[in-house]
Formats: sequence, C-alpha cells, structure tokens
Amino acid sequence: MTEKIRIAIAGYGNLGRGAEVAIAQHPDMTLTGVYTRRDPENVQTLGAAVPVRRLDDIARYKQDIDVLILCGGSKNDLPEQGPALAAAFTTVDSYDTHARIPEYFDAVDAAARAGGNIALISVGWDPGLFSLNRLFGEAILPQGDTYTFWGKGLSQGHSDAVRRVPGVRAAVQYTVPSAEAIEQVRSGVRPQLTTRQKHKRECFVVLEEGADADKVRHDIVTMPDYFADYDTTVTFISEETLRSEHSAMPHGGFVIRSGESGAGDNQVIEYSLTLNSNPGFTSSVLVAYARAAHRLKQAGESGARTVFDVAPGLLSPRPAADLRRDLL
Amino acid sequence: MTEKIRIAIAGYGNLGRGAEVAIAQHPDMTLTGVYTRRDPENVQTLGAAVPVRRLDDIARYKQDIDVLILCGGSKNDLPEQGPALAAAFTTVDSYDTHARIPEYFDAVDAAARAGGNIALISVGWDPGLFSLNRLFGEAILPQGDTYTFWGKGLSQGHSDAVRRVPGVRAAVQYTVPSAEAIEQVRSGVRPQLTTRQKHKRECFVVLEEGADADKVRHDIVTMPDYFADYDTTVTFISEETLRSEHSAMPHGGFVIRSGESGAGDNQVIEYSLTLNSNPGFTSSVLVAYARAAHRLKQAGESGARTVFDVAPGLLSPRPAADLRRDLL
Repeated sequence: MTEKIRIAIAGYGNLGRGAEVAIAQHPDMTLTGVYTRRDPENVQTLGAAVPVRRLDDIARYKQDIDVLILCGGSKNDLPEQGPALAAAFTTVDSYDTHARIPEYFDAVDAAARAGGNIALISVGWDPGLFSLNRLFGEAILPQGDTYTFWGKGLSQGHSDAVRRVPGVRAAVQYTVPSAEAIEQVRSGVRPQLTTRQKHKRECFVVLEEGADADKVRHDIVTMPDYFADYDTTVTFISEETLRSEHSAMPHGGFVIRSGESGAGDNQVIEYSLTLNSNPGFTSSVLVAYARAAHRLKQAGESGARTVFDVAPGLLSPRPAADLRRDLL
Repeated sequence: MTEKIRIAIAGYGNLGRGAEVAIAQHPDMTLTGVYTRRDPENVQTLGAAVPVRRLDDIARYKQDIDVLILCGGSKNDLPEQGPALAAAFTTVDSYDTHARIPEYFDAVDAAARAGGNIALISVGWDPGLFSLNRLFGEAILPQGDTYTFWGKGLSQGHSDAVRRVPGVRAAVQYTVPSAEAIEQVRSGVRPQLTTRQKHKRECFVVLEEGADADKVRHDIVTMPDYFADYDTTVTFISEETLRSEHSAMPHGGFVIRSGESGAGDNQVIEYSLTLNSNPGFTSSVLVAYARAAHRLKQAGESGARTVFDVAPGLLSPRPAADLRRDLL
C-alpha cells in the first residue's frame, strides 16, 4: 500500500465528529489531528488516539497534514478561516451560503494560488451533489426545467429562527417537500410551482412557562422570509418529547430535471437523498472529496475548485482501470 | 459568440437521428455532416441542410469536424470503428458491452494517443450516468451496497432473442424492475437479491401463421441467459397491436446506494431515469459529452477517457463563474 493521505480536521462540532468517523471508513486515509478554537483539554474526540490541538497553533503541524477539512460554520467561521487556511493547506469545506459563493470562491482562490494549494469549496450535498445534478440536468436536457425539493429534514436555520421567538424555550423545524408537487414534476408536466406549493414547514415547540401559545404560533407562522410564504404547522410538545423524538438530524431531498430531448420525447432525471444524519452524510462527502483535493494538489494544480471542476474518478481510491472494469 | 463546435455523426440509425436533433438544441454546436455506410442517396436526414456522405470518405472532411459522434452498434460497428476513427478524430461513443470495456478502452486509447485525439468511450446512461452514480455511491459511502435496476424499458437484445425463436414473426421484450425489491432497497435494509427477485421480463409476441403458441412460450421462458433465470410472461398480440402500442422505445432504471456513514446512520442515495425514448436520451448524453471531449482536446490532452475522467463543468456551455453563481 502507498502512503496514507494524512487528513486533519479544523472545527469539532457535528461535522467535525462526522468527518472523524468517516475518515476511519477509508483505509487509504489517516486522521493526524483535530484543531479547535476551544481549549483542547475540554475536547473529547471519538477516537482516543487523535491529538487535539489549538487551531491557532496549526501552522506548526503543516508537515503532518496533506488535506485539512474545514468543519466550521458558513456564517461566522469559513469567511475568515477559508482564505486564511487555504494559504497554508490544501483544504475542503462545505461553505453553503449560496448567495455568497462567488465572493467566497474569489477570496479562497487568491489565497490558495498564493500558497500553491488546492481549496475545494462548497462540498456536501447542497451545495455539492445536488449542484452536480442541476448541472448534468441542464447540460444533457437543455430544454427543460430543474426542480430542487428539500426534506423531509431538520433545518438548523429555521429551528434557530423559531427559538428566537419570545415564549419559546426550545424548538425544531422540519422542512417537508410536497408529495403532490413531486409527483407532478415526475410526471413530466413541468409545472410552475410557488414557494407554498413546494414545501411545508412543521415546527415542534417547547414553551416557556406562562407563555401565550396562540401568540407564539402567530409570531412563527407570520415571520417574514422564514415562514410567511409557507403553510406552517406549530405543534407544542414537552421537553421530554423534544429530547426523545426530535434529537436526530435527518434530511434529504430531490433534484429533478424534466425535459425533452431533440425529437420531443419527455425525459425525467431524478436524484434523491434520504439521510438519517445530515452532518454524517455531509462529512462523508467532504472526506471523499478530500482524496480528490489531495490528488489535484499532487498533480501540481493550485487555486479554488468546486465539485464542477473535479473528475469523479478522483474521488475513488481504486485505480482507473478497476473502475472501468467494475463500475462502468 | 465564439466559434461553434463542429460536430459530425458516424452512423445514422436511431442514435444518429437522436444526435442530429440533440445538436440542434445546443446553440454553441453545429452539425457539419452525417457519415454512413449506406448509399448517401438513400439516407434522408431530419434536417434538410445536412450533408450526407460515405463513411469511407470521412478522412477528406477532417477540417470540418471538431468532434465525431460514433452512433454505430457495440457488437459489430464500434470494435472496428472506434479505434480506426479515434486515430483521426476526437470521438465520443456509447460502447456498452460492459464485459469488453477494458479491451475496447485499450484499443481506442492507443489509437487516440497516436493521433493526438481524445476518445470518450461508453457515454450514455448505462454505461454512463449510472456508472457515475455507482462510483459516487461507493466513494462517499464505502460501507454499503449498490443496486442497479433497469426498466421499465424495451430491451433490444432480449427482443432480438425472442425474434430468433422459431414461430415468432415479431416481438418486443420489456424489462420490468420489481417494485417490491426497489422499496426494500430504499428502506435501507440492504437485501441480497437474486436475479429473479430484481426484474421481471414481459414479452409481446406476434406468431407466424400456424405456429404452436405453447411451444413458442416454452422456448422463450426456458431460454438460458436471457429468460430462464427470470419470471417471464409471454403475451400473444396482433401485428397491428405491436405497431400501435409497442413502437416506442421507453427505458430507464435506478441506481441506489444504501450505506451507513461513520457513526452508523443509514443513508440512501437514489438516481433514477424515466425515459420516453432511450435512443433520444442516450444521444442527448453523447452530445453534452461531445462538448467536454472538444475542450479536453483543446486543452492539449489525448487518449481514451470515460465519464469518470471528465470534470462535470466541461459538459456545460456556460462559464465556470456562472455555474458557481447559478447552480452551486
């Protein structure tokens, strides 16, 4: 066996923990360190032998790291960490603020080029695998429409929004795609769908003592951007029920391209994910793309990349001839 | 607009006709010729203005062709045409004899390298898009199982086999995936499925006058390799019914990866196609990959390639920055 790819993790929340156990599934990789902004003494990794160090000290360990997986958040961590770390390391991240991807790409690209590194940004399932399927769909069936549905799944951003409503002690929010809308799209009719027709939102809320349930419900369902444009249900539950029935992080969704090929025949391409753990899956995608990032760096390339730029064969540990024989 | 990609078609059956109309859907491409082994006088293209020429004369038109799409059959045409034409042209083909892909790749690779051309082989949906999804599935979820189901769809090879049975005047065969098996796989249980459990085969047969229906049915359902391992139904129909109800070429299928990420969570990835015209879709995929082949050639690369080697962004006519902004 050739030398293992030495991976490190920056940021040790749900995604970092997912990356740790995902790396253990790949015999050609080894985890050489977890880097955190917390006090390393207070961070307990899942694998006992993994060194935990201060992110501020990471430059000292450059020689131990082929690829650094950035597991921080898109809102506060990555805009700063992405460019800073791409200057010194080959990186992979899951930056998912869709509207700001162009500026993030440019910042990371400049840093990665200056450092002679590869920085693979916005890797995961959306952005990531869903993006790939949107691209394939329109390239293959240029006359058609692409539909993305999310869920059923726990939305962190919408759950946070519910938690900010006065009177709410705790809450989770599920995004639920409309089964009727999906069936319509699958049938090939290419409907125009409003926001309200595509998804429902289901909130499960634990109230503060003495809170006014009707007012809380009203404040949630009328909240602009987050809920006002959707059919939203609010169900009040106890703290125990929240813990016992709503602690998982399922997610998933659908990308459907419905189009017609040159002679006018309807053709439908559908890609879907049913995920019992959203961070567990996102980190699995990050780890597979870490292998690709390493290979691009080894090939002498540098700069920012996205899933659009990566030949799929680079994700696999297997030789190209084996992939052709067994999977083509 | 930059110069259009000049495409030519070698072989003008269902696939060639599909390629012709698919090219017309892409504003950055132009069809410069159809090359055929038949007498060009007897070939009527769908577009009036397309020159039809003898395949034997194609070398004379090298200056008009950026990419040649090979639309011949995998059994008799491509094993010879693939290497011969890759020596002189950048080619894309849909070679689909899975067991012989390694030797075909090697033959085409040698010719393409010698000629300084790109030859993109085995492009379509299986091999092709299904292969990509098998690759992504095992790279992202290394602990799991991949399931491929085909249909409901018309199988050319199996229809031909039925037609060879004495007493059969005409026939079509549909491959039908088992809905129960697919549901089981979707649920995440990762069943071991036998050939018989995965697909059924439905034959619609027009008998020769005086043929013994029971004997024909028996000869079909007991045919080794093709039918003996499947639950096969044989329905006898009239020539008119065959024409009116069985002249379309629908197909499709499913690639499902069911696996668990590092912490033991079940994750299911599903890719499916519902195609009203199999050759119409296959040729749409060929045409999108023709763009990628042209770009690889322009970048100075040469040799055989498969879908595993092609960065998805190369399929799209749009600039990388636009793809990141709109699709990522």
